[in-house]
Amino acid sequence: MTNSRATSGTLGADLHLELRGKGLRTGLMDALREAVRGGRLVPGTRLPSSRSLAADLGIARNTVADAYAELVAEGWLTAQQGSGTRVARRAAPRRPAAGASTAGARPVRGRPTYSLMAGTPDLAAFPRAQWLGAARRALAAAPHEAFGYGEPRGRVELRTVLADYLARTRGVYADPERIVICSGFVHGLMLMGKALRARRVREVAVESYGLDVHRTLLAEAGLRTPAVPLDDHGTRTGTLDGLKGVGAVLMTPAHQFPTGVALHPDRRAAAVDWARGTGGVILEDDYDGEFRYDRRPVGALQGLDPERVVYLGTSSKSLAPGLRLAWMVLPEHLVGEVLEAKGRVDWVSSALDQLTLAEFIASGAYDRHVRSMRLRYRRRRDHLVRQLAERAPDIRVSGIAAGLHAILELPPGTEQSVVRAAAWRGLAVEGVTRFRHPDAPAGGDASVVGDALVVGYATPPDSAWAGALDALCEALP
Amino acid sequence: MTNSRATSGTLGADLHLELRGKGLRTGLMDALREAVRGGRLVPGTRLPSSRSLAADLGIARNTVADAYAELVAEGWLTAQQGSGTRVARRAAPRRPAAGASTAGARPVRGRPTYSLMAGTPDLAAFPRAQWLGAARRALAAAPHEAFGYGEPRGRVELRTVLADYLARTRGVYADPERIVICSGFVHGLMLMGKALRARRVREVAVESYGLDVHRTLLAEAGLRTPAVPLDDHGTRTGTLDGLKGVGAVLMTPAHQFPTGVALHPDRRAAAVDWARGTGGVILEDDYDGEFRYDRRPVGALQGLDPERVVYLGTSSKSLAPGLRLAWMVLPEHLVGEVLEAKGRVDWVSSALDQLTLAEFIASGAYDRHVRSMRLRYRRRRDHLVRQLAERAPDIRVSGIAAGLHAILELPPGTEQSVVRAAAWRGLAVEGVTRFRHPDAPAGGDASVVGDALVVGYATPPDSAWAGALDALCEALP
Repeated sequence: MTNSRATSGTLGADLHLELRGKGLRTGLMDALREAVRGGRLVPGTRLPSSRSLAADLGIARNTVADAYAELVAEGWLTAQQGSGTRVARRAAPRRPAAGASTAGARPVRGRPTYSLMAGTPDLAAFPRAQWLGAARRALAAAPHEAFGYGEPRGRVELRTVLADYLARTRGVYADPERIVICSGFVHGLMLMGKALRARRVREVAVESYGLDVHRTLLAEAGLRTPAVPLDDHGTRTGTLDGLKGVGAVLMTPAHQFPTGVALHPDRRAAAVDWARGTGGVILEDDYDGEFRYDRRPVGALQGLDPERVVYLGTSSKSLAPGLRLAWMVLPEHLVGEVLEAKGRVDWVSSALDQLTLAEFIASGAYDRHVRSMRLRYRRRRDHLVRQLAERAPDIRVSGIAAGLHAILELPPGTEQSVVRAAAWRGLAVEGVTRFRHPDAPAGGDASVVGDALVVGYATPPDSAWAGALDALCEALP
Repeated sequence: MTNSRATSGTLGADLHLELRGKGLRTGLMDALREAVRGGRLVPGTRLPSSRSLAADLGIARNTVADAYAELVAEGWLTAQQGSGTRVARRAAPRRPAAGASTAGARPVRGRPTYSLMAGTPDLAAFPRAQWLGAARRALAAAPHEAFGYGEPRGRVELRTVLADYLARTRGVYADPERIVICSGFVHGLMLMGKALRARRVREVAVESYGLDVHRTLLAEAGLRTPAVPLDDHGTRTGTLDGLKGVGAVLMTPAHQFPTGVALHPDRRAAAVDWARGTGGVILEDDYDGEFRYDRRPVGALQGLDPERVVYLGTSSKSLAPGLRLAWMVLPEHLVGEVLEAKGRVDWVSSALDQLTLAEFIASGAYDRHVRSMRLRYRRRRDHLVRQLAERAPDIRVSGIAAGLHAILELPPGTEQSVVRAAAWRGLAVEGVTRFRHPDAPAGGDASVVGDALVVGYATPPDSAWAGALDALCEALP
């Protein structure tokens, strides 16, 4: 439809129009819109007749008449009998695009050279070819209806494959009918917040160290989030009985985030006892359960009591956050309410991505990827520990050998200065204090979690690992 | 890890364990979990020593000790000095999976043979090969960071391509910085609802015919949704001045849904005048603006005043609802608030899908697809009109020749019976009454919209078109 012929002419008194690189009609329309927007054609201005402008521009009269008609239909121009074609009153000049293009722009910050921020897998390791292969097979096999509006649970193909995978690898009791696909843990937590609030739950306990965004989401759902203290056996679930009015608790049993401890069997037991005794619900955030290096991963808490535990898993750590695919395994009594909260149709998750992930898992590519990432992250962690032993022997690495991050214990009072020293060396890394619950009981926790760094050793690509490690070691006291 | 060797034995008094098709340790763990869940191993039961069970099963003692240890870690068993290994108290039998698998299941209805329900494109026409090609190129070109947590606006690659496409095809003034990607119109409307409510807006006017789900979403955001009457020139935007306290209006100017009329230029003018005079916002739902058959599509209202109109577009009609990709073009003054409502990161839309759509549009595949679908739907509509003229000459088809649906005007009082007659013939189709705003002014509208059918002629695949049409004609009076 483009037309490289260029033409130009003077409209009325002194209006110069440039028509180029487009169909003449489109070009003329754009030129007139611009002239109005730019204020060169003020509202009320009478435009020349289509005949004279056509002659002026050396184009067909119909082209001009056409363009005028379009702009009248769009509301830029008005055409009254007798008074000819005029610029409509309301077509006022817009602000300069310069201003617009900075609209709502976020503050531009100098990006650090290296990042050891926790929470992201090695993005350079995303299995692009295998994912594309799965997408090809999924696209070929997809029924037509898959491209339509989906059911709120998510695609049954994915739920079926997940039920098997989660039972096999995480000891989850997972019936496809109890699985709900969501666009990440955050989405799942939002849905749980809505469902629990609809049940008149007022408080959801959280661990005394965790992500503030989780607390914020629950708060936005109208829920208070009291803290449960933790020690080196994990969250002190025995204290839940003391928290009257708490209807649910959000926990990371396999690998507490960020402190890195695993929940002791007795604490698992106490959590389930609390849930049964009070009718409470346990939200099990199994964000990195597939990554354990010292032993086989401990099965999910959910297997112990599928009616009291909501299992939340995600592909954000095992594959990539950019996929926006996660899953919940729900107690039977919560399925209806969560679907209610999710909506009449699945308005969130792409059907093609769900089918691709189902194919990716069914083909064994997911297991292979997790296995190779486990090896890679384990090497990273071992290397980190060795390097620290050599170059910063006073620093103790705490937490179990698992997941995508490690805790580096620091001398009291040094956390902030170390973070700043790292930033100075172009390394982005966070202190553990940032994850502390505002009203976390100082006593019990301080003994476990003093000043420390949360080091996301999975984050940098291989090419940046050595540099990031150097910057880290230099920043340490 | 699987191991086809099968073995079995009797545990304690009479417990029979079957180990097959898995590693022995895993198999034994599963068998023990099942025995506990099934109630054959009651809480408190003391398990045989690892030595005797190993002998009994004819497997290595370490395997049994291993399995016991795992189950203790998971909380199924307890191991006290002296009292040996016992089934934990809390490991209670679960309900039968049969019950679980019907959990929250939606009512099973007999699916109709044909559907002429409006709102869905021809899903059989999804360009699978071209989409896969775009995905391949997008995956190859994607920077590593694309697989991470994205910015709330959505991928800049997609926003840049969209800005050009929307300016070119819809006359939208679109700066990439003002575009926010969302997972469908519904998501965009939710975000707008939150942003407007945060601005203390209490009422968002809607057209007197439209989708109830849109009204519901606005209501959930705490907004009242008074109705604006419409006639055969479209929504009577002149009446907006009479609606005090209305801070925004949701409209379908290009092709009113469901009545199918186009907004008259004077009405466009009046809408913009109202917005400017009151500081109100126009939400332009351009759901099918690319599909017009009688003339070139009229440009979007947004072009008239980018600071007062929010443009909402989607791929759900042009490509497929299953993609969950849509876009908003925002006034500069709303960008910050909408991003605020969307969250710190893009927790919704898959980065790969966004990059694939960007590539799909940039390569021209999107234009080609829209062009071929325009031709296909136009043929469908013409065929529908011809068939009705022959077989149901009393039925008038109203609304402009555009979009994916037509309005069939029915004799007064016959709508429900026709819908039932259609259902009787296995045809799902809806009457226009279902889309009527609860407090729509009867007078003005009744004159335009009496009893009528909303016929989604794009919905059936070619193979089902003739059959659907027959069922429709037979159901008509």
